Amino acid sequence: MKIGIIGYGYWGPNLVRNFSGIGSCTITKVADPRKERLAFLAKNYPSIDGVMMADDIIKDPAIDAVVIATPVFTHFGIAYEALKMGKHVLIEKPMTSTTDQAKQLIELAEKNDKVLMVDHTFLYTGAVQKIKELIDSGEIGNINYFDSTRINLGLFQPDINVLWDLAPHDISILNYLYNEKPYSVQATGTCHTGNGIENIAFITVNYESGFIAHFNCSWSSPVKIRMMLIGGDEKMIVFNDLEPTEKIKIYDTGYKYMTDEEQYSIRVDYRSGDVHIPKINMKEALSGMASDFINAINNKTTPVSDFNSGLEVIRILEASQVSIKDKGREVIIKS
Amino acid sequence: MKIGIIGYGYWGPNLVRNFSGIGSCTITKVADPRKERLAFLAKNYPSIDGVMMADDIIKDPAIDAVVIATPVFTHFGIAYEALKMGKHVLIEKPMTSTTDQAKQLIELAEKNDKVLMVDHTFLYTGAVQKIKELIDSGEIGNINYFDSTRINLGLFQPDINVLWDLAPHDISILNYLYNEKPYSVQATGTCHTGNGIENIAFITVNYESGFIAHFNCSWSSPVKIRMMLIGGDEKMIVFNDLEPTEKIKIYDTGYKYMTDEEQYSIRVDYRSGDVHIPKINMKEALSGMASDFINAINNKTTPVSDFNSGLEVIRILEASQVSIKDKGREVIIKS
Amino acid sequence: MKIGIIGYGYWGPNLVRNFSGIGSCTITKVADPRKERLAFLAKNYPSIDGVMMADDIIKDPAIDAVVIATPVFTHFGIAYEALKMGKHVLIEKPMTSTTDQAKQLIELAEKNDKVLMVDHTFLYTGAVQKIKELIDSGEIGNINYFDSTRINLGLFQPDINVLWDLAPHDISILNYLYNEKPYSVQATGTCHTGNGIENIAFITVNYESGFIAHFNCSWSSPVKIRMMLIGGDEKMIVFNDLEPTEKIKIYDTGYKYMTDEEQYSIRVDYRSGDVHIPKINMKEALSGMASDFINAINNKTTPVSDFNSGLEVIRILEASQVSIKDKGREVIIKS
Amino acid sequence: MKIGIIGYGYWGPNLVRNFSGIGSCTITKVADPRKERLAFLAKNYPSIDGVMMADDIIKDPAIDAVVIATPVFTHFGIAYEALKMGKHVLIEKPMTSTTDQAKQLIELAEKNDKVLMVDHTFLYTGAVQKIKELIDSGEIGNINYFDSTRINLGLFQPDINVLWDLAPHDISILNYLYNEKPYSVQATGTCHTGNGIENIAFITVNYESGFIAHFNCSWSSPVKIRMMLIGGDEKMIVFNDLEPTEKIKIYDTGYKYMTDEEQYSIRVDYRSGDVHIPKINMKEALSGMASDFINAINNKTTPVSDFNSGLEVIRILEASQVSIKDKGREVIIKS
Repeated sequence: MKIGIIGYGYWGPNLVRNFSGIGSCTITKVADPRKERLAFLAKNYPSIDGVMMADDIIKDPAIDAVVIATPVFTHFGIAYEALKMGKHVLIEKPMTSTTDQAKQLIELAEKNDKVLMVDHTFLYTGAVQKIKELIDSGEIGNINYFDSTRINLGLFQPDINVLWDLAPHDISILNYLYNEKPYSVQATGTCHTGNGIENIAFITVNYESGFIAHFNCSWSSPVKIRMMLIGGDEKMIVFNDLEPTEKIKIYDTGYKYMTDEEQYSIRVDYRSGDVHIPKINMKEALSGMASDFINAINNKTTPVSDFNSGLEVIRILEASQVSIKDKGREVIIKS
Repeated sequence: MKIGIIGYGYWGPNLVRNFSGIGSCTITKVADPRKERLAFLAKNYPSIDGVMMADDIIKDPAIDAVVIATPVFTHFGIAYEALKMGKHVLIEKPMTSTTDQAKQLIELAEKNDKVLMVDHTFLYTGAVQKIKELIDSGEIGNINYFDSTRINLGLFQPDINVLWDLAPHDISILNYLYNEKPYSVQATGTCHTGNGIENIAFITVNYESGFIAHFNCSWSSPVKIRMMLIGGDEKMIVFNDLEPTEKIKIYDTGYKYMTDEEQYSIRVDYRSGDVHIPKINMKEALSGMASDFINAINNKTTPVSDFNSGLEVIRILEASQVSIKDKGREVIIKS
Repeated sequence: MKIGIIGYGYWGPNLVRNFSGIGSCTITKVADPRKERLAFLAKNYPSIDGVMMADDIIKDPAIDAVVIATPVFTHFGIAYEALKMGKHVLIEKPMTSTTDQAKQLIELAEKNDKVLMVDHTFLYTGAVQKIKELIDSGEIGNINYFDSTRINLGLFQPDINVLWDLAPHDISILNYLYNEKPYSVQATGTCHTGNGIENIAFITVNYESGFIAHFNCSWSSPVKIRMMLIGGDEKMIVFNDLEPTEKIKIYDTGYKYMTDEEQYSIRVDYRSGDVHIPKINMKEALSGMASDFINAINNKTTPVSDFNSGLEVIRILEASQVSIKDKGREVIIKS
Repeated sequence: MKIGIIGYGYWGPNLVRNFSGIGSCTITKVADPRKERLAFLAKNYPSIDGVMMADDIIKDPAIDAVVIATPVFTHFGIAYEALKMGKHVLIEKPMTSTTDQAKQLIELAEKNDKVLMVDHTFLYTGAVQKIKELIDSGEIGNINYFDSTRINLGLFQPDINVLWDLAPHDISILNYLYNEKPYSVQATGTCHTGNGIENIAFITVNYESGFIAHFNCSWSSPVKIRMMLIGGDEKMIVFNDLEPTEKIKIYDTGYKYMTDEEQYSIRVDYRSGDVHIPKINMKEALSGMASDFINAINNKTTPVSDFNSGLEVIRILEASQVSIKDKGREVIIKS
C-alpha cells in the first residue's frame, strides 16, 4: 500500500515516523508548500518524495491512501478531492469545520467504499483504553459526570480558537467512553488578543439523563494541567495525563442518598475507600492509530476513531461555537 | 464587650475558640437547639452559658454583639431581629438567601448605626492578602481572567446547593481582588441525588472589559482541589490552597499579540520566565476576621469583609441560581 | 486511675489532651518548672493541679501512673524514682540516654510489677498498623530493605543531636515491622553550628541476612520529607507521611535473578505492575498510645510500644552515636 | 573532522544523533559486535559504515576522534589503543575502572597532545549550569552539605554495581559545584541477587571543613527520585530533575547559631523565606557535551568535563568500592 501525507508542519513528522514503522505500507510522497519543511523532510527521509502541492498526491494514481495534516479550514476540500480520486483518507482532528462538511465526506466515502477516518490519537492511548475497559466492565457503576481540564501556556493558533484546538481531544474521549446522545451545550469564553479568537473557553454538555460533561480549555494558564474526572456511582476515575506512569487512579468512592426527616441532618452521605492504580500499556498511541487505518483498509474493519467519531466531535464543537458567540446560550445539538 | 454566638454546629466551635482568644471581648452565651451540642460546649467552655433559643441571646440587653452561624435560610430573620434589638451583627457566609434580604439588613444596620459584617474568612488569609498586595502594586499587570476550582468528596448540604456552599469563598475573593462590576453570569450544574440540590456546578461571570471569571464547584470529586489561577498580562498567579506552605506561585509569564500576514504563522506568542514563591503569613485567618469585627465596633472602622462584600456575593449567587435553573441562560446581575 | 504528667513543653499539651479524652483515668497533676507553662495549663485545664517539681507527682500517693515528657537526659532519673515509688511509667521517646539505663528501668519495673512503656507514637498510626498487617500477611514477600528519609528545616535541639531527635521514630517502626536482630551500624553526620551536636546524620543498620536499613535525618533541609521505602521481593511499599490521605502505596513490583551467560545481557530483571493505595484509619495515634498504656495497667496486657521496643531503639541509637563520633566505623550492636 | 563511535548499545544512538547534529564533524564509522545493532544503525543512518571490531575504527587513519560507549571494563584498553594511534578520545562515564588506568590515559593523552575527555552529561544541563552560576555568585553563601538521591526500579547491570552505574552522575556534579578536596568516604550497600553486585548503596564523602556529601543510589526503589539538596548558609537549593520545567528551587532559608545560657532554650534558630524558581535552559545536554569535545579538539580549549573531572570521580568511586566491601570502613581518598 502506498501512502501520501499532506502537510508537514508540527504533526506531520510524527505521522511520517509512525507510518514508516508499519511494514505493510510505504510513504511515497509528502506535500508541503514550505521549502524549508521539504528540506527538513529530505534530510531525515531521503527516500520520500517531497512535493509542494496537495494535488501531486491526490492525483497520483499510484497512491492508495492520503493522510491530511493541514490547517482545519482546508480539511474538507482536500479530503473531498482525495475521496473523489478513490483514495482512502485519514484526517487530523478536528475532521472538518462544519457538520455539513463532515456529512458530505462520509456520504462520499460510503458511496466510493473508501475508508474515511479521523486521527483522535487519544483513543489509542493505553490510559483511555484502560478507562474504556473499566467502564464497560461495570466496575465504575453508572457514570454521573465527566470533567476535563486541558490548560497550559500554549501556542495561540491563528485560525481556530482554543475550543477547536484542544477540546476535540476531550470530546472524542467523552464520546468514546459514554454512549448517551448529548442533548445541548453551553459554552463561554473570552479573547484577550483582540483578534476575536478565544484563548479561554468553558463548555458544558448536557444529557437528558442528568449526566453532565464540562471542559475547561485554555492557552493562557501558567501551569499545565491535563486532568479528567469521571464520576461513577460505584467508583470514580482520575486520569492525569501528566503523570509519567501513574496516569489513572480508580477511587473506590461514592455517595448515596438517604431519606431523613430531621432538619439539620445530612441526607446524602459519601464514603471513601481504597485507590487502585492499574498498570497501563505505554505503547505510542499514534502507532496504534496508524495501524488501525491500514488495518481498516486491508480488512474492511471499522476503526476505533471512525468517521462517526469525527462527526460527533464536530457536532459538539459547532454547537459550542454558536453558544460561545451567543453569550453562552443553550444550543441544542443537531442530530 | 459581650458577645453571643448563635449556632454551635460545624463552624461554631471555631468561632468560640477565636473570639475567646481576643482579650477585649467575652462570649457570654452560645445558643443551639441541640442538647448534645450544648453538652459539648459545657465540657469545653464551662464558663459560657449555653441556651437553646436564639432569642435568649438577641433579647439579652447585656449582649453587645451577635455572631450568627446557623443554616443560611435563617440568617436574615435572626440578623434582622438582632439589629432591631441594637446588636452589632456578624453573619456566616453566605450573608443571606437573597439580595433583597441583604439590602434590608444593610439599611437597618445603617439606620441603627450598628456594624453588620459577613464572615468571608478567606479574605483574612495570608495568601489572599499577599495576592491583593501583588495585584494592587501593579506587578501582575492588567488582570485578564480568574479561574477557580474548589472540588472534593464533600458533605452534601440538605438545604443549599454546592454553589451556595462553596462558591461564596471564591466569589468573595474575586470581588476583593478585582474591582470591575460584573455584568452577567451563566451557571450550569447537575444533581445526582434526586432532591433537586445541585452537587456539581460551574459558573462563568462576565465583565464588560473582557475579563472573565470561572468557578468549578463540586461535592463529588474523588480528589480535593483548591486552586485559583489569576492571569495578568505581566505575570500570572497560581494559588494552591492545599500546599502547606508554598501556596502562591507567581509566574513571570505572559503573551503578546503580533501582527503577521503569513498564513501558517503564529500571531500570538507567549513567554515563560522565572517563578517566585513569596513567604506568606500563616496566622489563622478566622482570628483576623474576629479581630476585624471587634475593631469595627470599637473604632468605627470598615471591616475588610463588610456588608458590601456580603451583598456582592449574594448578587452573583442569586443570578447564578436563576441561570442554573434556566439551563445556563445568561443572567444580568442586578446592581 | 490517677495520672500525673511531668513536663509541659512542646509535647506535654498533646499528652494532656489525649489522656483527658479517656474516661477511665483522670489527670490530677502536671509538673513543669516554668511559671508561664503552668499559667498556660491553668487557662486551658483549670481542674488540673499545676506543680513545679517532679517530686510533687512522684511522691503523691494518690497518683497511680506517671507520664514523663522532659528532656531526654532527665528520663532515667525521674522514671527510676517513679518506679521505686510504685508508679506505672510512660516515657517519651527516646526512653533513656543509654542501654544500661534502659535495662535498669526494665529490671525495676519487672521487680515491682509495674507497667513501663515508651511513647513511640508512630506505631499507633493507621499507616504503620496497615503496613504491619501487609507484611505479616506475606503479601510483600521477604523484605529486602528499609530506607527512610526524615528531613526538614527544623528546630535545633540544644541537648541531643538530630539522630536522637528524629531517628527514634524510624527505628521504632523498623523494629516493629521487621523482626531480625540487627547486627551492626555505621553512622555518619556533621555539625554546622560549632556546638558538636550533629544536625545531619545518616545511619546504615546491617543484618546478617543481607537486609539493610538506612536513615537520612536532617534539621537542615529546605524541603520537608517524611518517606519510607520498604522493599519486598513480591511487592514494595512507599509510606509518604506528608500525603494527607494517600499515605501508603503498595507497588506490585519486584525483580528476579536470571542465569545468563551472554556478556552484555542483563541477568537481573524487574517488573512493574499495579499500585494499590489502601484506605487507612485516620484516628489520632497518640490517643491509641494513651489507651494502650491505661489498658496495660488495667488488664496486664503488653503494650505495642513496650519497654523492649524502647530498649531496642536505644541499642541502635547508642551504637550509632559511637559510630558517628568514630568516623563511621562499623559498630556491633550489643545484645 | 572524522569521528568513529565504538559501542552502539543503550547510549550509542544518542551519541550518533548528537554528533550528527554538529556541522563541523562527520561520523564515518560505528563499531558494535552485535549484528542486530549494526542492522538498526544501517536502517537509521545508511551513510555510516557499521563495523564489528573496535580496531576497525582505532586503526583507521582517516578517523580523528573516537567516542567510546562500551562496558566500563573495556574503556581503558580501547582508549589506550586509540590514544596510541593518535586519536582524540571521549569516554562514557565512568572513565575507567581504576584511578591507575585513568592516570595512564591522562599521561598518554598529554604526551601525545590529544584531547581526552569523559562524558559527564549532567554538567552540560541547564540546571547544573544554573546551580554553578548561583554558587559562584556567592548568593548561596558557604555550602554546608550536598545530599543526593538517585533511585528507581532500574536495570541491574551485569558487570558494575549501582554505585559505579549511578553515582558518577552525582559525584561529577558535586566536584563541579564544590571545589574542596574530599578527604575520605564511607560506603555501605547490599546485594539482593546473590551475584555480589550491590543494587543499593549509600556513600558519605567527608571533607576537612565539615562539608559533607551523601549519595543514596538504588536500582530497587518502586518510585523514581532524582533529587539533590545543596545547603548553603545563606540559601539552599533543591534540584529535582523529574520536574519537567521547575527543576531548581532556591530557598531563601538558613539558620544561625545563638549563644544562650538557659537550659531549655533553643540555641540554633532557622528562618524560612521566599522561594525562587529560575527559568533554565532546556537545550539537550548531550549536544553541549558533543560540541565541547569538538571545540576542545579544534581550539585547544579545556572541556567542562575534562579528564580531571573523570579522574576525580574514579577516585571517589574506587575508595567507595573499598569501603563497601570492607563494611563501611572510612577510606582515605588518595590524591
